[in-house]
Amino acid sequence: MNLALLFDEDFTAPDRVILSGRRLQHLHTVLKASTGETITVGRVNGDMGRGRLVRMTESEAELEVTLNTPPPAPLPLTLILAMPRPKMFRRVLQTSATLGVKDIWLINSYKVEKSFWQTPWLSDDNLLENLTLGLEQARDTIMPAVHIRKRFKPFVEDELPALLAGKQAFVAHPGTATPCPTHLNAAAALCIGPEGGFIPYEVEKLQEAGCQAVHLGARILRVETAVPVLVSRLFDASL
Amino acid sequence: MNLALLFDEDFTAPDRVILSGRRLQHLHTVLKASTGETITVGRVNGDMGRGRLVRMTESEAELEVTLNTPPPAPLPLTLILAMPRPKMFRRVLQTSATLGVKDIWLINSYKVEKSFWQTPWLSDDNLLENLTLGLEQARDTIMPAVHIRKRFKPFVEDELPALLAGKQAFVAHPGTATPCPTHLNAAAALCIGPEGGFIPYEVEKLQEAGCQAVHLGARILRVETAVPVLVSRLFDASL
Repeated sequence: MNLALLFDEDFTAPDRVILSGRRLQHLHTVLKASTGETITVGRVNGDMGRGRLVRMTESEAELEVTLNTPPPAPLPLTLILAMPRPKMFRRVLQTSATLGVKDIWLINSYKVEKSFWQTPWLSDDNLLENLTLGLEQARDTIMPAVHIRKRFKPFVEDELPALLAGKQAFVAHPGTATPCPTHLNAAAALCIGPEGGFIPYEVEKLQEAGCQAVHLGARILRVETAVPVLVSRLFDASL
Repeated sequence: MNLALLFDEDFTAPDRVILSGRRLQHLHTVLKASTGETITVGRVNGDMGRGRLVRMTESEAELEVTLNTPPPAPLPLTLILAMPRPKMFRRVLQTSATLGVKDIWLINSYKVEKSFWQTPWLSDDNLLENLTLGLEQARDTIMPAVHIRKRFKPFVEDELPALLAGKQAFVAHPGTATPCPTHLNAAAALCIGPEGGFIPYEVEKLQEAGCQAVHLGARILRVETAVPVLVSRLFDASL
């Protein structure tokens, strides 16, 4: 927790917040913070700044906050992911939030197992918690949006073309001839398939919708590795 | 397992291997392979190719192998990591192997907790197993070397200068003025600190040894995210 993310319900006055739960535990056990100390804070979707601990008990901590610094610029990326295996999903979500991705679409694909959609990590509370952890790691406040689309064809035919308008769009597809570009400085969209990849029909549909197939070299990466590698490669000028 | 990595002791003849244990389980339960099918194989530190299943039982699988394809080019990177927290270490090791890193140095730092060095993941068997998993994910055969240095100063003063000879060398240091370069096409060395970063004394010592301090932007990344982001950024031309 390199920043404590503050939500509207934490505020008791414009410059006062009360923390409990996970953030309080972190203050007690990891930061070993005490009254009078200051920590880095940020208001969700707002500015960052400093919070001075004015009162601290076992059950809550009260901070006086000054918010005057804008968060880092968001990455201009629409990330479209075949729903990952649950144990990877949580890390991919946190990592995407840490990297500054603000628009995440979870889609179906032939090789996405039906059971992946049953994971409790897809609940609103768990999505919020993991995105928060990713933002707190990075020191960012802008909460990403997550969109869930459990049917591939309607998404690709009816929604994707509008989503890609005005953007360069790519689908990561091992074995294709074109390497993934670098140094983008404009809005882009990136589709990443499941373990085993998109099937040829899916790649064709994504190409019809406007995505260019690109590869990352000879190595086959896990989705949790492919996300930071691709983001870093596309936006090396913006990081 | 996108490739089954074969070791000398698996060979019963120049073109015959017998698999048991984890690789056999994977054939049975994930690939659901049966006699006559072929899978991708590679000999450790040697060529890759195909293996045809000539016999398969509950306890072993025999394959006839043809090895005729070189593995992907290694990354010309010396990766110097402050020993990560055990739960991250295993993933960092696998990811580094997957990305093609062949030379990994685990070093001490002020913010490395003493207990991190006690992890069973540092045993020879566990290092080999996790590096193997990373190579099998990538489809690579060249086993990385891991060097353990539990004392910072002797390493940095006595070994590091020779290790950096002829290489561009960097230490990832948030808050410094120079952004991490891109498009390297020569040998390089990269130092990545622990959670909370190297302390100023350590950064100075690394700079004295020949490392340039570089940053990755405003976001603070976990080491498991920083490794793929930095590798992708430095070697975007080689991936």
